[in-house]
Amino acid sequence: MVANNVLRKNNGHNAGFLFVNFGWAFAVFAGASLAAPSGAHLNPAVTLGLAVAGKTEWGDVPIYFLAQMLGAIIGAVLCWATYKLQFDDHPEPENTLGIFSTAPQIPHRVWNLVTEIIGTFVLVAWILLSPVVKAGDGGVPDFGNSALGYAGVAFVVLVIGTSLGGPTGYAINPARDLGPRIAYAFILPIRGKANANWGYSWVPVLGPLVGGALAALLFLVLPTAA
Amino acid sequence: MVANNVLRKNNGHNAGFLFVNFGWAFAVFAGASLAAPSGAHLNPAVTLGLAVAGKTEWGDVPIYFLAQMLGAIIGAVLCWATYKLQFDDHPEPENTLGIFSTAPQIPHRVWNLVTEIIGTFVLVAWILLSPVVKAGDGGVPDFGNSALGYAGVAFVVLVIGTSLGGPTGYAINPARDLGPRIAYAFILPIRGKANANWGYSWVPVLGPLVGGALAALLFLVLPTAA
Amino acid sequence: MVANNVLRKNNGHNAGFLFVNFGWAFAVFAGASLAAPSGAHLNPAVTLGLAVAGKTEWGDVPIYFLAQMLGAIIGAVLCWATYKLQFDDHPEPENTLGIFSTAPQIPHRVWNLVTEIIGTFVLVAWILLSPVVKAGDGGVPDFGNSALGYAGVAFVVLVIGTSLGGPTGYAINPARDLGPRIAYAFILPIRGKANANWGYSWVPVLGPLVGGALAALLFLVLPTAA
Amino acid sequence: MVANNVLRKNNGHNAGFLFVNFGWAFAVFAGASLAAPSGAHLNPAVTLGLAVAGKTEWGDVPIYFLAQMLGAIIGAVLCWATYKLQFDDHPEPENTLGIFSTAPQIPHRVWNLVTEIIGTFVLVAWILLSPVVKAGDGGVPDFGNSALGYAGVAFVVLVIGTSLGGPTGYAINPARDLGPRIAYAFILPIRGKANANWGYSWVPVLGPLVGGALAALLFLVLPTAA
Repeated sequence: MVANNVLRKNNGHNAGFLFVNFGWAFAVFAGASLAAPSGAHLNPAVTLGLAVAGKTEWGDVPIYFLAQMLGAIIGAVLCWATYKLQFDDHPEPENTLGIFSTAPQIPHRVWNLVTEIIGTFVLVAWILLSPVVKAGDGGVPDFGNSALGYAGVAFVVLVIGTSLGGPTGYAINPARDLGPRIAYAFILPIRGKANANWGYSWVPVLGPLVGGALAALLFLVLPTAA
Repeated sequence: MVANNVLRKNNGHNAGFLFVNFGWAFAVFAGASLAAPSGAHLNPAVTLGLAVAGKTEWGDVPIYFLAQMLGAIIGAVLCWATYKLQFDDHPEPENTLGIFSTAPQIPHRVWNLVTEIIGTFVLVAWILLSPVVKAGDGGVPDFGNSALGYAGVAFVVLVIGTSLGGPTGYAINPARDLGPRIAYAFILPIRGKANANWGYSWVPVLGPLVGGALAALLFLVLPTAA
Repeated sequence: MVANNVLRKNNGHNAGFLFVNFGWAFAVFAGASLAAPSGAHLNPAVTLGLAVAGKTEWGDVPIYFLAQMLGAIIGAVLCWATYKLQFDDHPEPENTLGIFSTAPQIPHRVWNLVTEIIGTFVLVAWILLSPVVKAGDGGVPDFGNSALGYAGVAFVVLVIGTSLGGPTGYAINPARDLGPRIAYAFILPIRGKANANWGYSWVPVLGPLVGGALAALLFLVLPTAA
Repeated sequence: MVANNVLRKNNGHNAGFLFVNFGWAFAVFAGASLAAPSGAHLNPAVTLGLAVAGKTEWGDVPIYFLAQMLGAIIGAVLCWATYKLQFDDHPEPENTLGIFSTAPQIPHRVWNLVTEIIGTFVLVAWILLSPVVKAGDGGVPDFGNSALGYAGVAFVVLVIGTSLGGPTGYAINPARDLGPRIAYAFILPIRGKANANWGYSWVPVLGPLVGGALAALLFLVLPTAA
């Protein structure tokens, strides 16, 4: 009875479940990045883009990457603890990877990569080029303190999600995908868990990094931006 | 006929109904807290966290707690008055407690507590650590006047709800759960109401208080925050 | 075929349709009130509350009321023009009043009134007491120019809608309900339209006015507010 | 199997798909317009309205129009690349035009035009008359830098969508409709695509331009606005 209830619950909440992970990743990243001088580094693709654009020291990049991965793994563990009872009662434990990491609707290594590149390109291009963020840079002492900048990023992520989320589940963040995948594969004691789909795991890592770097190159080329 | 219509309506609006209570609690809390020097004290778990973090006088804490419980009880009474006709026509009056208080999908005293602790931990950690709120502290005269801070909190509550709402209905606020439960049990003349599930009632009180205190301890330990 | 398509479309969009009218009323009210010195007067209940609270000249109240009714009627006409083809193809033309005006799920003159009073009370109390709006009053030259105040109002209306919208369709604005009702009854050439339910029409006029006045009395009584 | 999955997916995401295009158009327009001195020119109807109102140089209008069309076409190509696998597996390739351009629920050249005129009129009237944007003009150095102005526009577009979106799919932007239509007809290699419905294509171009110009005339006539 309970299992059946949970099954229906999980089915009905599937879309929300994906959001779960993202929300968690976001929250924990925010926590991890608060120790850093800037609050903007929640996403390795954004960090890479800022470094290519000359707005972040290359020497800080590995530290950001490490903190981002660590934050994502901690987030995945907390997510599991929150839903521990639901995991125990899940009737299809081999289908729980999707709670942690993204997967393509139609697997295809080239076009899945294209989707992730385009989505991250839009995100990082917006962060680098948007007058909202630039206003935050100039008018307010620090981007990390600009609530409007954060609200703008949230809105852009929402637009990317509704626009481009379908085909690959829009990772647009290597740590948000790889961190929970590592937690799923090596840390969490989930009953009857399946393999972590490592064959796809490089796509939501490489795609966002390429997209972020391309956006930074566009930024460097545009005459009015840099 | 009417009863049937209402039944379907209530079924269709069940999720919204839970929101009802939260919305009401929020609105009335806001009203109650306007008489206080700071608008931030809508939630005993936040108040406790601010006190542990040294940002609120311990002597004010009992007054906040009292106002928060009173506000939540008044909110529950107004909620009942608004839906009085719907309560009268409800075909399953023994199932109306969920309109007022939260309940776990899968009852388990330890893991339900963990879920409430994690959810409130995220909320209070965000309030204490977020650059948005810190900017409000420094740039704007008073946190209580910062619309951006409030918008940020609303966004965080939304993220917590979509991330962690499933298992226990995310009280993350002792007054928001206990106040309406008391109103349901002792005040409101609801036809054929059932018992108020007192066996679970301590979880959404203790969990949020523990989560808020833990977030404050993290705040005190972090070198860059305090 | 077309009619059937439209029927399903209208069924599927019923909730949205009610929103239609509200959205329109909002937009056109905003337009009408732009000629007035303050942008805050979109709602006779708010205008009455501001007058009772001593924040609006009593002599201006009738002009606001007139502009609000006129705006709502123009809005209803534009709404009709936008959906003219859908009205022509509507298979149940006698059920089109709900597109223009609110109606209770369970008719009851006392409790429907209570619902409208409580909903409007929350709205006007928030406008009068919220630190967000007060900050707008002091920090920014004019409330009418404060985007944050408007965003806050929109959020409060959303909360009221999810909390209290069910029983009566939350008019919480006499002009928004009576104006389109007059347009429906006397102006619009809608094929096979039914009577305008005048027996209920006084509830969404009197309720919001009483709720707005009560909120203003609370404002005058609170020691820290006035 | 895959095709069937995709079919259900596409059916379930139809509403979202239309949003896709809008989101994309928005994002790419934003990118294109960042090179321009003002960030406000995402929409030829808004540009025309600003020119009629005397707020934009007539000489700049053709350049804006060109950039807007180019941005919309690039956006459509990127949208196609993102969903390339879904297009290949789509079981009804003749029904993919709606992913790129709007179409009326009930075709009628006069009333469809009226719907597009009213929707764009509200958008441009709000931009010209809203105190939010005017505050942005005066208080903040440049409208293009005002995050609040952009948030307000997004809110108005949302209201227009819920209010007036039904009958014609609310283009309210000639480039957003014509650009993707051109991309669909002449550029994108979509398997088994149908004709681009050129017979309707002039409505979402002419309607928004007329609506924008009418809103500007209203602005010039109002005594308190200009």
